[in-house]
Amino acid sequence: MKGQRIRACHVKLAGMGKARAGRQIQFGGQSRYRLEAGEAFSDLAVSAAVSALSAAGREIGDIDCIVCGMATPMQAIPCNAALIHERLARGLDIPALDINTTCTSFLSALDMMSLMIEAGRYDRVLLISGDRASAALNPKERESYELFSDGAAACVLERTKEQDCGILYSCQKTWSEGAHDTEIRGGGSLLPIASMNGENRDAYCFSMKGSRILKLCAQKLPGFVEQCFREAGIKREEIRMTIPHQASRALEVLMPRLGFPAGTYVNRVAEYGNMVSASIPYALCEAVEEGVINRGDLVLLLGTAAGLTANFLLLRY
Amino acid sequence: MKGQRIRACHVKLAGMGKARAGRQIQFGGQSRYRLEAGEAFSDLAVSAAVSALSAAGREIGDIDCIVCGMATPMQAIPCNAALIHERLARGLDIPALDINTTCTSFLSALDMMSLMIEAGRYDRVLLISGDRASAALNPKERESYELFSDGAAACVLERTKEQDCGILYSCQKTWSEGAHDTEIRGGGSLLPIASMNGENRDAYCFSMKGSRILKLCAQKLPGFVEQCFREAGIKREEIRMTIPHQASRALEVLMPRLGFPAGTYVNRVAEYGNMVSASIPYALCEAVEEGVINRGDLVLLLGTAAGLTANFLLLRY
Repeated sequence: MKGQRIRACHVKLAGMGKARAGRQIQFGGQSRYRLEAGEAFSDLAVSAAVSALSAAGREIGDIDCIVCGMATPMQAIPCNAALIHERLARGLDIPALDINTTCTSFLSALDMMSLMIEAGRYDRVLLISGDRASAALNPKERESYELFSDGAAACVLERTKEQDCGILYSCQKTWSEGAHDTEIRGGGSLLPIASMNGENRDAYCFSMKGSRILKLCAQKLPGFVEQCFREAGIKREEIRMTIPHQASRALEVLMPRLGFPAGTYVNRVAEYGNMVSASIPYALCEAVEEGVINRGDLVLLLGTAAGLTANFLLLRY
Repeated sequence: MKGQRIRACHVKLAGMGKARAGRQIQFGGQSRYRLEAGEAFSDLAVSAAVSALSAAGREIGDIDCIVCGMATPMQAIPCNAALIHERLARGLDIPALDINTTCTSFLSALDMMSLMIEAGRYDRVLLISGDRASAALNPKERESYELFSDGAAACVLERTKEQDCGILYSCQKTWSEGAHDTEIRGGGSLLPIASMNGENRDAYCFSMKGSRILKLCAQKLPGFVEQCFREAGIKREEIRMTIPHQASRALEVLMPRLGFPAGTYVNRVAEYGNMVSASIPYALCEAVEEGVINRGDLVLLLGTAAGLTANFLLLRY
C-alpha cells in the first residue's frame, strides 16, 4: 500500500494543551461550545499553545517551527501559523507554516513534522490545531448546525532518545469520490467572496451529506484499517486506547464495524461534538490529563476528514 | 541558526509544467494574465499538473502523494489537493494534503516533501502551486490591483540515486512584525464571510503595504541571505541562476542590495507580475524549458511571503 510508514520515529509529545470556546449550548441533551462575544478563535489557539509549552516545560524561544494543522484560515492571508507567531513569537524568527487535510490536519502535521524532526530539520515543533466551525454553519442544515464546537489543541513535539516513544506507523489515504460530501463551496477562488449575493449565500456555509459520507466510510474504512494493522504488525489488543475523530453521533455505529467495541475508543460526541481539526488532539490531551493514557501506552489516532481523507497513526505515547 | 538544513537530499524534479490564465491585460506597459470567462483556477492547476506528469514520463497512478503548496483555497473546504485529486485521481487512494506559507508555499512544500521522500515515506510526489490572485484584488489599491497574474505550476518530485541532484540546503524564517503588511483580513474565522456588509467589503480584499514590506525586507533579508550562504558553504558565483519570488517591480532594487546584480537572477515582473505561490515554480519551469537551467546546475530559489516569511532553497537541478 502506498503512503505508509512502518519504521519507528523517535519523537515525543512533550506537552499538550487545549482550550474550548466559552459559550455552552445544548442540542438534544448534547453540549456544544461556541465563541462568545469578545472571544476570538485565535485566543483559543494561543491558549492551547501556551498550555502545551507549559506542560512541556518549554518557552517559545525553544521552538524551531510553529505549525498550524487546521482546516480553516483565521484570515485569508497570511497563513494561520504566521498569525499565531505574531501572538506568541513576535520579535523571533521561528519559521511558521500551515498543513491542511481538513479534520485530520493534526494527524497529517504530526506525521510530517515527526519526519522533519527525524531528518534533523527541526528539533522541537509547536503544533496547533483547531477551528471556529461556528463561523460558517448553516442554521437550515440542522445535522451540522447542532454538531460542532469551537476549540483548539496543541502539542510540543520533540526529538527524543527514549526508545519506547514515538510514531510507529502512519498512513493517509484520500478518496475524492467524497470531495463534495463535506464542503464549503464558496469563499475560495472557484466561488470568490465577491460573488456572494442574496441567492447563493448557502454555498458559503458548511454543508454535510451525512448519509453519503457514512456510505463511503463503510465502503473504504474497513479495508483501510485492516491493511494498516497488518502493515504495522500490531494487533488491536495491544492498543491502550483509540482516539477517533469525533465526526458525529454515528461514531458509535461506525467504530464497532471497524472492530472497535465500546470502551476501546474515546467517544466525547455528547460532551463536545465535532471540533474539526481539534477533535483528535483535544481528546488525546484530555485522555492524558485524566490518566487514561500514560507514557509508554500504545495509542491509535484514527480520523476521517473532508476529501474523503482517512488517517491512521500509531503513537507510543 | 534554527530551521536550516545542510546535508544533501537526493531527490529530483523529474518534470515540471505551468499554465497561465488566458486573458492578457496591460498596466503601464507590463503584461498581466487573469482568468477569462468560463476558465476556472482549477483548470490551470490541473493543466500544470498534467504537463508536469508528462514531462516526467509518469502517470497519476505512479504518484504517492498529491500536495498543493498554495496561498489561497479553491473552496473553503476541502483542501485544494483533494479537489485536484478529484480531477486527476478519482478512483485512486493517493493521499492529498496542502502546505501553506503564502507566496513561498512551493519552497516550503518542496523542502518538506523532499524530506518525506528521503525518509522513505513517499517515492514520488506531485506538487502543485498557484493562485487566482484576481479573486480578491481591490481596484482601489492600484499598486496591488495592477501587479498580479493568475497562474499555476507543478512538478513531479522523486527519489533518485543520482549523486549530483537534489536539495543541498533549505532555510525558512518568519518575522511576524510583518504579519499585517500583506493580508486579506476577512474571509476566515476572525472576520467571517457572514460578517461582510456594505461598510467592510475592503477588508475582504487583498491589501499590501508596499513600503512597509520593503523596509522590513531591507532590515531582515541581507543578514538572512548571508547566513544561508555561509551555512550552506556555497558561494554566489557557484550558482547558475537565482529565481526569486516575483514580488513586485521593486525586485530590481532589492536583488542587487542582496548581492544579486542584474543578469544573475530571473526577473519576469514585466512579463507576468506576481503569480503568488506559482511565481517561483513558473519561472523555474520556464527557465528549464528555455535552456537557461540544465541538469546539474546549481539553482537558488529565494522568496518572501506574507508573514513576513522568507525561504532560501539551494537546488542542484
